Amino acid sequence: MDVDAIQNNYFSSYEDLEVHKLMVEDEPRTLAYKNAILNNQSYFKDKIVMDVGSGTGILSIFCAQAGAKKVYAVEASNLAGLSKEIIRENNLQNVIEVIHSKVEDVILPNNSKVDVIVSEWMGFYLLHEGMLESVLMARDKFLKDDGHMFPESAAVYIAPCSVPSLYQKWNDIYGVKMTNFAKELRASKGNKPEILTIKPEDLLGTEVILCWFEMKETSLEDLESFTIQHVLGASRDGSYQGLCIWFECLFPDSSDGEGDNRVVLDTSPKSAPTHWKQTLIVFPQEQAVEEGEPIAFQLDMNRDPINGRRYNLQVTMLDPEVVEHPQPCSCHMTKCILVKEFLKQHTDHVLNQKNEINGTNILQDEPIDEDDDES
Amino acid sequence: MDVDAIQNNYFSSYEDLEVHKLMVEDEPRTLAYKNAILNNQSYFKDKIVMDVGSGTGILSIFCAQAGAKKVYAVEASNLAGLSKEIIRENNLQNVIEVIHSKVEDVILPNNSKVDVIVSEWMGFYLLHEGMLESVLMARDKFLKDDGHMFPESAAVYIAPCSVPSLYQKWNDIYGVKMTNFAKELRASKGNKPEILTIKPEDLLGTEVILCWFEMKETSLEDLESFTIQHVLGASRDGSYQGLCIWFECLFPDSSDGEGDNRVVLDTSPKSAPTHWKQTLIVFPQEQAVEEGEPIAFQLDMNRDPINGRRYNLQVTMLDPEVVEHPQPCSCHMTKCILVKEFLKQHTDHVLNQKNEINGTNILQDEPIDEDDDES
Repeated sequence: MDVDAIQNNYFSSYEDLEVHKLMVEDEPRTLAYKNAILNNQSYFKDKIVMDVGSGTGILSIFCAQAGAKKVYAVEASNLAGLSKEIIRENNLQNVIEVIHSKVEDVILPNNSKVDVIVSEWMGFYLLHEGMLESVLMARDKFLKDDGHMFPESAAVYIAPCSVPSLYQKWNDIYGVKMTNFAKELRASKGNKPEILTIKPEDLLGTEVILCWFEMKETSLEDLESFTIQHVLGASRDGSYQGLCIWFECLFPDSSDGEGDNRVVLDTSPKSAPTHWKQTLIVFPQEQAVEEGEPIAFQLDMNRDPINGRRYNLQVTMLDPEVVEHPQPCSCHMTKCILVKEFLKQHTDHVLNQKNEINGTNILQDEPIDEDDDES
Repeated sequence: MDVDAIQNNYFSSYEDLEVHKLMVEDEPRTLAYKNAILNNQSYFKDKIVMDVGSGTGILSIFCAQAGAKKVYAVEASNLAGLSKEIIRENNLQNVIEVIHSKVEDVILPNNSKVDVIVSEWMGFYLLHEGMLESVLMARDKFLKDDGHMFPESAAVYIAPCSVPSLYQKWNDIYGVKMTNFAKELRASKGNKPEILTIKPEDLLGTEVILCWFEMKETSLEDLESFTIQHVLGASRDGSYQGLCIWFECLFPDSSDGEGDNRVVLDTSPKSAPTHWKQTLIVFPQEQAVEEGEPIAFQLDMNRDPINGRRYNLQVTMLDPEVVEHPQPCSCHMTKCILVKEFLKQHTDHVLNQKNEINGTNILQDEPIDEDDDES
């Protein structure tokens, strides 16, 4: 498939109404936008807004309900036509102008700029679909310097996990052993990441950030490739069977630093399930780990050179004896326990000093005497 | 697509392990087979069994666990190979013989016959996939005269219903009107039946049987076409938006008429959800009905002349004034109320006589005097 075909294919996939049904019915998603917009009306009242990839027009309607003077709803697919009808149903045709175009080709009257850009551009593992690029181009072209991006930041997280639905479950299912089925199932997935729901109790350790985007700062080059080397201690005994990837988006908060109106769209296993579920890189073979045992991996995420809307994800297992551990590290290797203890003592010491300076002298735990270990 | 291509396509679709994952993980389905087999072991102990379309082999394994002497697991797709490994994991390779073949081409040693045929042949609205035909051919060729079919009977039910997920839901979703979206969504489905889950409270009346198959009696000709004309009274005020179709399978019961071991696999909206969900014929336009208002329809289900694995379903709305109503009928038309009352009086009369004969004389409600209506 050449690049044009990929583009056309991408836009026409959004003519499938079932996709929009799925997205609109995704309550954590749609309510995050609704609340972010309607709880922060001061950002919208009498303002000019652009909705990039407006689809059915529902986000543009929220913006109009929040008091926007004008909303440009930019939609490249043929859904633009249907969205006009939906906007008319809501009697907002005088506020919302649907522009049936790629955002890259849009020219606003008098080259005017907008106060807010709203867009639901997130794909699986955040960056799949590569729509963020169009949003950043829209930002550079249309957003006023003091304008706001909805969402305003986004981060991708990774954590080691068990994947019982592709492992344990099949060791005894209705009294039958089907481990060979599970093995074949995993093999059939090849290197493709798997979109599925992971339970919080399947996580094997604390998440680490792979990348973080401030939507007003991020440049196109920032989207090319990501790499992380990480070591952590397993949070429990278990089977290390994959890496779980999810994302979180933060929306602007108009409550003057009090954070009361901050809306977070969190797709972690600990939050309400969304249509993005979680993205998993499932290992062909599992590895038993004990609580505190170091897990070391490298994740590389690189934009596919042919289909720029996809990324190739690659995991490399690292030797915890060789790679550098973070400080402090949650693993049970002697060096990390010692460093952690040292840092704790240091922190305690600083805290004690601070407390003394503040006139309070909180009783601290006695620093552990290293000699105690030998007694 | 020609017929051979359809066949090849059909079998290779079962090489997708995700399909088998979905089926095995469908608990009401798999547990119905497990319980039907393991609660009725007398049908299996030291018997010869054939599993038609054995897939992963899980049903064959249940049969072996129930004491079968020999199980022929017949599987046309390449999954046959994987199922051998699963059978070996369960150490049942001496009982279960996997035959990688269409069942139509199988020849058993010495043209022997089997005591039981087990098969999970049911598709959406029971008959989609057209696999029943192969099972009936296997029955005629391999089943002993006193043998058993698992399941032993199956029925298709229809009831009028509301489909809120394609209607009401979109009248106000997060404070936005999207009725035009729902309209377009329904139109996009054309005449294709929709596979989705209906809540019991969405049903608008009592179900009627479209067809019923006794697996030991049904002939291939019985699978060609089905038609039903039906009238019923709406069970409540509501919006008549579609017809809901589901099926039920009954398994043989070895408890000598006590019915204790009878397993029923029921895919109705009132039962636990399965991967078959329900099949819906959604109307482009809804119709408001009052409780008791007659709903009259004709459903025609005809095997597709080109792809025999599919059926074409067609609904015709009928005029309740013109078509014949069942006796008694639940609708509120005067004639039906009178007939129902007459039948009730007649039944009461017969019951009274019977009770008198039996030496009991239960007090009956006084028959309603028609003059009362005018007082």
